[in-house]
Order: sequence, then C-alpha cells, then structure tokens
Amino acid sequence: MAEAKYDVLGIGNAIFDVLVQTDEKFLADHGMTKGGMALIDETRAAAIYRDMGPATEMSGGSAANTIVGVASLGARAAYVGKVKDDQIGRLYSHDIRAAGVALETKPATAGPATGCSYILVTGDGERTMNTYLGAAQDLTPADIDAAQIASAKIVYLEGYLWDPSSAKDAFVKASKIAHGAGRQVALTLSDAFCVDRYRGEFVDLMRNGTVDLIFANESELHSLYQTSDFDTALKQLKQDVKLGVVTRSEKGCVVASSDGVTAVPAFPISQLVDTTGAGDLFAAGFLFGLVRNAGYENAGLLGALAAAEVIQHIGARPKVSLKELAKKHGLPV
Amino acid sequence: MAEAKYDVLGIGNAIFDVLVQTDEKFLADHGMTKGGMALIDETRAAAIYRDMGPATEMSGGSAANTIVGVASLGARAAYVGKVKDDQIGRLYSHDIRAAGVALETKPATAGPATGCSYILVTGDGERTMNTYLGAAQDLTPADIDAAQIASAKIVYLEGYLWDPSSAKDAFVKASKIAHGAGRQVALTLSDAFCVDRYRGEFVDLMRNGTVDLIFANESELHSLYQTSDFDTALKQLKQDVKLGVVTRSEKGCVVASSDGVTAVPAFPISQLVDTTGAGDLFAAGFLFGLVRNAGYENAGLLGALAAAEVIQHIGARPKVSLKELAKKHGLPV
Repeated sequence: MAEAKYDVLGIGNAIFDVLVQTDEKFLADHGMTKGGMALIDETRAAAIYRDMGPATEMSGGSAANTIVGVASLGARAAYVGKVKDDQIGRLYSHDIRAAGVALETKPATAGPATGCSYILVTGDGERTMNTYLGAAQDLTPADIDAAQIASAKIVYLEGYLWDPSSAKDAFVKASKIAHGAGRQVALTLSDAFCVDRYRGEFVDLMRNGTVDLIFANESELHSLYQTSDFDTALKQLKQDVKLGVVTRSEKGCVVASSDGVTAVPAFPISQLVDTTGAGDLFAAGFLFGLVRNAGYENAGLLGALAAAEVIQHIGARPKVSLKELAKKHGLPV
Repeated sequence: MAEAKYDVLGIGNAIFDVLVQTDEKFLADHGMTKGGMALIDETRAAAIYRDMGPATEMSGGSAANTIVGVASLGARAAYVGKVKDDQIGRLYSHDIRAAGVALETKPATAGPATGCSYILVTGDGERTMNTYLGAAQDLTPADIDAAQIASAKIVYLEGYLWDPSSAKDAFVKASKIAHGAGRQVALTLSDAFCVDRYRGEFVDLMRNGTVDLIFANESELHSLYQTSDFDTALKQLKQDVKLGVVTRSEKGCVVASSDGVTAVPAFPISQLVDTTGAGDLFAAGFLFGLVRNAGYENAGLLGALAAAEVIQHIGARPKVSLKELAKKHGLPV
C-alpha cells in the first residue's frame, strides 16, 4: 500500500450556514420539524429567509465540518465538495483552505448558486436546518480524482450525499477506489429523516461492504432498523458493519465492533449554546483517533472533546485549536 | 414641525464584516496598525484575505450598527447606505431590514462589489479593520430622499463618509434638509486616522453648524485638536459644537454642552471578547436616550449598556434585545 498523503478525505454537500437565534414559535409558524434537516427549494428558501432575523454566516456542510475538525486536531485532511464560483462559494473555499484542508474540487461556473442552510437555533441550543442544496447538486463522479482518493487513509462520506441526484454515484466510485487501494471507508448516517429516505440503500452499503465504519446517533440508528429498542438496533448494527459508532448526546457514545462493545462518556460542558456540528465534530475526533491508532476509547474521548467544544458556541466549526485542546486534556495527538 | 416618522436615520458606508480571530504577529506581518481602520484596494483585500484564517461573516458598517442598536432599543430607525445587488449585498439588506430598520437605498447594479471589512480580532479583544469600500463608494446625493431625511428626529452621519468621493456631498445635502425641517444632525468622528485625513473639514462642519452633536472617542478627540491633553481638547470641543460626547473606554463617557460637563461611568463587563462596534453601540444608546428625552446621564448610561453588550461577543451588532436589557437594568425605554 502506497504511503498515504492524507489521513482523512471527506466528501459531502458544500453548504454555507446562515445561522439565526430564534424561538419555538418561528419553527411552528413555518412548519419546521425541530432538530431535523429539511431540504428546501429556492422558493421556500426565499420565504424562510424573508422572515428570519439578522443572521451570522459561516461555512458549514456536515462532512466539511468534520474534515476541518480533523485538520484542527493536526491530521492531514482533504475535502471534495461542490460550490459555485460566486461570492459565497469563494468565502466557502477560502474558509476550508484557511483551516488547512486541501480542496481541489472545481467550482461550478453555471447552474444554481452555492448551497445554503438556514439554521434556526432555539434557546435550548437545538438547531433546525433548512437546506437549499444549490451547486452541491452538481457533484458528480467526474469530481472524484482516483489518485487523490487512493491517497487517503480513510474516506469519509455523508449520508446527505444521497439527496443530490448524482452524488451517490460519486460516493460509490470513491468507495471502490478507496477499497482498491486498501483504504477504509466511513459513512455518517447524517440525519434520521435522511435515513428514512434511504434506509434500504444505507443497509445495503453496510452489508455489501461499501462502507467499513458507520457513524450514527441514536435516532438515526433507531430509524435505520425501525426499532425503538437501542440494544436491538445496536446488535443489528454490529452484524451489518465492521465498526459502528453510535453517539448518545450527554450519555456519550458506544463503539461496536467484532471485539465487543465499548462505552465512552461525553465530555462535561459549562453551557449548551448551539448543537450545530455536534455529530460532525464527534466524527472528527473519532476518525483522528483511528488514524493515530489511539484505540476506540481514546478515539471516543477525542470525539467527545471535539463535540463539546463546538456545542458551546454558535457555529459548526471549532473556534480553538482542537490539537491544543486535546493536549490540555491529556488525550493523544 | 411635522410629526417625525423616524427617531434616528443613519447614513454610512454599508460594509459586510469578515471577522477572524488572530494574533499580533499577523498584524505585524501584514503591516497593520492595531486598533485602526485602514482603507484597502481590491489587490490588498485579496492579499489579506488569502492569508486570513477561517472567518465568520455578518453585516456591519459603523452607522448601520448604530441604527440597528437604536432599533433594538425600540426606536423607529432608518438607514441610507449603498450595497451592490450581489449575494453579499442581499445578505446585508436582509440583515438590516430583519433588525427592524427601514432601508430604501437602491443597490448598485454595476461597479464594484458590496464593500467588505476584514476585521482581525486579537486575543485582547482589540479589532483592526481593513476596509474595501466597494459599492459604498457609489453613494451620492441622488440617494438622499428629502422627504425621508426630513421625517427623522435625528440624522446620524459617520465620518467615514468622507472617504468615498461623493458621499460627503450626500452628507451635506442631508444635513441641510434636516436643519430645514428643524431636525438635529449628529456626526461620529469614526476613527483617529479618519480624523487625521479630514481634520479641517470636520472642524468646519462643527463651526459652521452643519452638525449639532459630535461623538468621539479620546484618540479621535486628541487627533481632532492635535493635543494630548484631554481637558484642552474637551474645552475646545465645547466651544465648537452644541453637544459633544466623548467615550473613554472603561472610564465611561463625558457629555459636554452649554449646560456644563457630565461624566457617566462605563458598564461593568465579565469578559472583553471583541471591541468591534463598541463606539457604534454607545452612539445607539445615547441617541436613543436623546430621542426619549431621558437626559444626558441616562443617555450616557444607555450608551454604556449597549456598548457593554456588544464587546462581550464577536461581531458589531447586539445579540439580544437591547430594549429588554435596558429594562432589566432599570433604564428608561
């Protein structure tokens, strides 16, 4: 196996976040399901934005947030995602590169604008996302560079890629290349509603070996196996995939593999401000632990630490060096 | 005098803020003067942005921040400022309207992009601004609607308007209309370097009665009269303008009028995060106090409270309702 150039390469929908603090009434008035991610078209995007309060903008996108977290921990990271060559797309490309992530995907020069997510954060810190995919819809297998994919120890994919029409083909292509090069492929289930849309396909990806590692939170896991019993779902997950990592908010996470099940506690926080990016940053810490061969427990702790950092401020990307933070807490970097 | 439709109408450079936390070395390496506002051209903007870390974006602009603060306190507010009809300009227009401010200025359809300021915030909370004026350069007297100006109790202008070539003509036109309608005209000196560029003109504006009220911080006041002695400068200010308000950071502010001099303390804060918007929000509180006829001391306290709110988080606009905050502290709203 060739020397890896990157530790983790992420593929996802490149989405610019437009964040606003709001109240429950706004969600109810606009028929939004709290805590979820709804796909919206241009017309609905305009209607929601018209009614929203003053916002703060920053680059987001689930896998992109994860990859920025991986880079912040000190690993070599790359991202594949599609923006348009417009003002927001240029902000997006700047931010991910400025975080130390390689981005070589060509921006779209025609078609819809760079994708945006209107993220409503309520007083309890919960985020409700409304995503207009925009240019992210135009990610195709042609954007997958075989040499680049083969040069990453882990290829990390987001379940949200099932939403744009041709991104799933890019996903499957990337997985084949990665496995051909002896690399590992990880998938996050992204969102319980996303799982609901693509349940059968996600289970197939696990059973046919397209993915080696699954990240899920409890509600995604329950949705995947259509059961409200955690142990039943976890047992099934263990059978379907080599490595399954399930996050359980303040209860920490559970790592299920052929070696057994390891439970890792969450990290204490002083104030929950905004859960946006919690799962993304957990995955960042866990993936980093894996590439450093730190063991499942340390990987889980690194994930918990990164998640704890990101939920204590507005926005889905770390505001401090996660490497320094991990060092401070005696975790391996 | 006709019934006023607005309490305060602000005219300023409409600028989108691109904020990043950085260190002193970045400022030194890029030849930036800490704490100031430097005007930059497109080439320098690109060079600074290329080297900057991942950023957070939000709408800004000095007078615009003030006007948003006035609206947040519960007064009727309007803003005149020029963006381009581009993605960033649309974010900008949304944010100020969503804050409850009337914005009727037509966006530019050609010419440079919406203006941006690259704001570097160092660990001590100090901000260093690099502003590309962009479309703000195209604010002209044609953007001044006589009926709208005449309908505001106070017209508030920023010294930064002296930088774009034709905005000062818009400024003088607005002042004439306001005075013709029996209204008051306020000016903030904006920045010590700005004062250095236009010292003589600013003094003339005061002496010839174009402005009735001046906002300045200590360094702007010292720059205006080219003296390092505060009392000498304040005495001169008292002679030159009907009402002078000088902010002195943690020492509070001093209000100088024909009635004498009133000192008002600053508001205690728990953590200084980012001074961006401190002066803007002080002016918001003070102007609000004036339109409510709350007296100079209460006006100063309202200014201090609004400034204290904005320096305890990233960004130059309030994150909570200033009206509620003022109520909580027993100040008149």
